Amino acid sequence: MTIRYPNGKRYRPVRAATERQIVHNDTYSNRGKTLEDELNDSNEYYLSRNIAVIHKKPIPIQVVNVNYPSRSAAVITEAYYRTPSTTDYNGVWNGKYIDFEAKETKSKTSFPLQNIHAHQVEHMKRVQEQHGITFLIIRFSSLDRYFIVPYEMMMQKWTRMKDGGRKSIPLKEFEQEAIEIKIGLMPTIDYLKGITTLMNNEE
Amino acid sequence: MTIRYPNGKRYRPVRAATERQIVHNDTYSNRGKTLEDELNDSNEYYLSRNIAVIHKKPIPIQVVNVNYPSRSAAVITEAYYRTPSTTDYNGVWNGKYIDFEAKETKSKTSFPLQNIHAHQVEHMKRVQEQHGITFLIIRFSSLDRYFIVPYEMMMQKWTRMKDGGRKSIPLKEFEQEAIEIKIGLMPTIDYLKGITTLMNNEE
Repeated sequence: MTIRYPNGKRYRPVRAATERQIVHNDTYSNRGKTLEDELNDSNEYYLSRNIAVIHKKPIPIQVVNVNYPSRSAAVITEAYYRTPSTTDYNGVWNGKYIDFEAKETKSKTSFPLQNIHAHQVEHMKRVQEQHGITFLIIRFSSLDRYFIVPYEMMMQKWTRMKDGGRKSIPLKEFEQEAIEIKIGLMPTIDYLKGITTLMNNEE
Repeated sequence: MTIRYPNGKRYRPVRAATERQIVHNDTYSNRGKTLEDELNDSNEYYLSRNIAVIHKKPIPIQVVNVNYPSRSAAVITEAYYRTPSTTDYNGVWNGKYIDFEAKETKSKTSFPLQNIHAHQVEHMKRVQEQHGITFLIIRFSSLDRYFIVPYEMMMQKWTRMKDGGRKSIPLKEFEQEAIEIKIGLMPTIDYLKGITTLMNNEE
């Protein structure tokens, strides 16, 4: 099935994967789909069923030089990747503001916190203060396991690191404190179901 | 005063203005600040006072070629601007999802609807269905006047155009149906105040 954006354009996961491999120094599994591909598919599903409007933000790029061979096709000939100042994904789900960052690791034992930038943590803190719903989605690629890390859990691990503690979150803590997401077909990663579980637990 | 992002980077309006001039075929006043600059300043103000977390999304760019002269500085040597599939600004304000597009025109009599893309209107429709708050901010640059166009007003004008009616919104209709924003110092464009007015009127 060809997946199309609402504007009729064909969904092209290849480009997205290329960009991410350039920007992040993360490690990736050799499976066909990256976490970003799977989340894009899931967000397309949510959009097509009128469940939620959640998009990945474009990667910030600083443009230095542009050529104009013709009026219709400006060619950028010099540009640089910039560090994102927010998380990668945000949107709205039944009146609720959703904001998250997604990361994958090849490690089978822990998730290194260096994959998260300090300004992203700061952004998530601000979102939480504005009563948005913010979290991480972590994929252990070698294990094919996916977790939602609620804001409070992330901040606790982040603070522990800043206080001189360990620089990663062990898998055991994911199993005990995070919400594991089982992979499906439609959508691939039903993270909003995980968030519903989280919200019900808090009530 | 030097404005800085939360991550400590200096705010650089020059680059943003350059990007926008390339991407949009809109017309601009010769005043020092563009609408985008003013909105960035306003969003910085909201962020610094913990009023709201609203950011402009990066401009989507399709990267074709990248050189790696050194590990720390990948240089993009071929890339192209893509058409945005959503609005430019979104974020969260006291639990509410905020989503808008901002445009300016040099015209003194009307705003041409061709400045808005069909897929942006479709996006705003979806946001409205998810109970987000979505609107346009329009600046008549030659008149120094600013308006918030609520979703319902925009859709009515858009539908009128699609039904064969006029392809622009006359200033008179802005004066009668939109919310005019008076320019201040801190923040420059207090559009959340305008949205508060809008919400109170609806109650």
